Amino acid sequence: MYERIKGFRDFYPEEMRARRDVTDQLEDVARRYGFREVGTPALERTQLYVDKSGEEITDELYNFTDQGGRDVAMTPELTPTVARMVVAKQQELSKPIKWFSTRPFWRYEQVQQGRFREFYQTNVDIFGSSEPEADAEILAYCADALTGLGLENDDFEFRVSHRDILGGLLEAFDGEVDTGEAIRAVDKREKIEDAEYYGLLTDAGLETADAEQFDALLSTDDLSELVEFAGTDRVEAAVENLEDVLAAAEDFGAREYCTVSLETARGLDYYTGVVFECFDSAGEVSRSVFGGGRYDDLIEGFGGQPTPAVGVAPGHETLSLLLDRANACPEGSLRTDYYVLTVGDTRPVAARIARELRGRGHAVETDVSDRSFGAQMNYADSIGAETVVIVGERDLESGEITVKDMESGEQTTTPVESFPGDHERPTYDDLA
Amino acid sequence: MYERIKGFRDFYPEEMRARRDVTDQLEDVARRYGFREVGTPALERTQLYVDKSGEEITDELYNFTDQGGRDVAMTPELTPTVARMVVAKQQELSKPIKWFSTRPFWRYEQVQQGRFREFYQTNVDIFGSSEPEADAEILAYCADALTGLGLENDDFEFRVSHRDILGGLLEAFDGEVDTGEAIRAVDKREKIEDAEYYGLLTDAGLETADAEQFDALLSTDDLSELVEFAGTDRVEAAVENLEDVLAAAEDFGAREYCTVSLETARGLDYYTGVVFECFDSAGEVSRSVFGGGRYDDLIEGFGGQPTPAVGVAPGHETLSLLLDRANACPEGSLRTDYYVLTVGDTRPVAARIARELRGRGHAVETDVSDRSFGAQMNYADSIGAETVVIVGERDLESGEITVKDMESGEQTTTPVESFPGDHERPTYDDLA
Repeated sequence: MYERIKGFRDFYPEEMRARRDVTDQLEDVARRYGFREVGTPALERTQLYVDKSGEEITDELYNFTDQGGRDVAMTPELTPTVARMVVAKQQELSKPIKWFSTRPFWRYEQVQQGRFREFYQTNVDIFGSSEPEADAEILAYCADALTGLGLENDDFEFRVSHRDILGGLLEAFDGEVDTGEAIRAVDKREKIEDAEYYGLLTDAGLETADAEQFDALLSTDDLSELVEFAGTDRVEAAVENLEDVLAAAEDFGAREYCTVSLETARGLDYYTGVVFECFDSAGEVSRSVFGGGRYDDLIEGFGGQPTPAVGVAPGHETLSLLLDRANACPEGSLRTDYYVLTVGDTRPVAARIARELRGRGHAVETDVSDRSFGAQMNYADSIGAETVVIVGERDLESGEITVKDMESGEQTTTPVESFPGDHERPTYDDLA
Repeated sequence: MYERIKGFRDFYPEEMRARRDVTDQLEDVARRYGFREVGTPALERTQLYVDKSGEEITDELYNFTDQGGRDVAMTPELTPTVARMVVAKQQELSKPIKWFSTRPFWRYEQVQQGRFREFYQTNVDIFGSSEPEADAEILAYCADALTGLGLENDDFEFRVSHRDILGGLLEAFDGEVDTGEAIRAVDKREKIEDAEYYGLLTDAGLETADAEQFDALLSTDDLSELVEFAGTDRVEAAVENLEDVLAAAEDFGAREYCTVSLETARGLDYYTGVVFECFDSAGEVSRSVFGGGRYDDLIEGFGGQPTPAVGVAPGHETLSLLLDRANACPEGSLRTDYYVLTVGDTRPVAARIARELRGRGHAVETDVSDRSFGAQMNYADSIGAETVVIVGERDLESGEITVKDMESGEQTTTPVESFPGDHERPTYDDLA
């Protein structure tokens, strides 16, 4: 017997159905916002990730040399790929470019709760607008997608921060601070000890006293305090931008889900403005459910024209943990509209009925295993058939079939020549 | 600028939309037949393919050693994976097991028309029935899927053959013939010269005269001639099975698309009974569009209980060639139901309207780029907006908005407080 690979999963029908419902909801809401689906390859040149994230990224890649000698990697995330695609057609594409796609990605990481080596994301991005409405539309998309999945206002929160507030504050302490390194320390804050956190901040170039003051500033409720402290245009503009995004989110119906949380930093280097992470309000899902933000410099870094961008990538695995916790999981049991049961040599009639019902869009099964009445009934039950249409030799002699409701067990006979007839979706209740 | 990898493709929204329509149709018809979606991993152990197809399969695999030292391959086809999944839960799964899934697969092959290194298939399989109805249901599924895509009866044909007829005939000539090798020769018949074909048959162990007679027998219209020639139970049973499958296909509405064609052999070793390939009737798509058939021994070969199986895997790339040839391609242009245009400081009202329209399931965009009236109109046109709702400062002073039909250019004003109001999908025509 062959075994599947660690961190990779098989999804059998019941589980797949729940996953499909989540995917459909994430995609349906994206379509309502006017996002367009794109399709992207599973392999990219490894260099794409090394250039963006440094050589150490290869530790968590599924990368290899293909038969043509190319150094390739199974894509660990979508952003570099869509950035490449925007650059390739930057003249033709009308702005804003609004794209989504759902796909697996791959990272060689430690397998743990909600984290696998093959994992699914729905990426949703806007390219070509630096306005706060674009950031707010991403937040509103997330809010609509999550509430559409059955989550309530008190199930989740978006912790919203701003890279330029963090960067500007650090700069105000000391122009020589390595802001990237310091921001990575903020991103790790909740996972590490205080001593290690302050160590990372001083490694990044902050004096110990400054590191403590910086940390205190991050928990302020009053953004104007930060503007006053820093006294720089950069922080003033960043605070104004964050407030503008929240005001637009108010108009777009997403403000109620947002809390300002400067401790939220996002680990990735390419973020530039507003960043946010979605958290379980109940705290049972301990990690961020997903995150997103603005990355205005990436397209230019990939050789394109300067193109502001903002996006989010809900990961299906952590989202499922949240849905589970909130008891909002899609109903997973299998349903089938009809099972058309044959008794004796009635296949032509049963097949005609099955075809007509399928033609009306219903899910219909019929016997493909030459089985007895009892075995077919048992199977019909196992697939959650709502109605069983029994086509029996003896019934047919008098021109009739039997229609059985599988919930109640009640059944009735009806003339075969008028079934399904004018009924769009005939059930026992219509015919009894 | 980064380049994508040869044989891999980016799908921008217009092309992706056409591909999505094809996928949706293939999956929707599968659901109507009661097939259930499964999800499968992108990597399997390389051994899975080597055991099934021999060491030479690695020439066309994307295989490598992962960071944990596993020899893994990006899946070149689905069948071994679903066979592994059936074996893993063979006790729990109620039979027949009817599964489908749509996914990319990867093979390091020569790139040519309709063939890429990353390609998409919708796999549809039935496990657990050896009855002719199961084969016929797969044929009927294919017929419904193709006609649902807009193809007509004279656009395509299913060339149906039977492995046991071919094997039984070969055996009748000479019990020592390597039937697998001879069947692979038949599969290549149309792509190679006569001399090479006969060379392969004699290499497989046929005498030259027998090879010629064998070839002549394959083109017969009268299957009873083959039964008589072979005089074996094996050929008699195989011919009867083929006729039973075609009779069931008649009941299921698929017979009209089938022609018996023993020259159709399918290259893969694991097929055991009825096999078929879909061809372009006009012959412009020179290769088989897709194929399928019965593989009764594979599950047992994977360590499971004997479990008959039959399936098909329409490939989206060759299917697109056929749809192109038959001018049945899904309409690719982008459409958007509404663009809500803001003039001046009207964002709260515009956002309210956009949200209500989205709440009714419509695709709605609004300004996220702080653009002028003209730029927004231009963008609305570029996204194929059907209706533009203009929310202007001056109009709002008199409590009105403007609704514009983008096809005709006609527009009318309507009270803002009753828009969208009771209209499920308000357009210019409803309001003028």
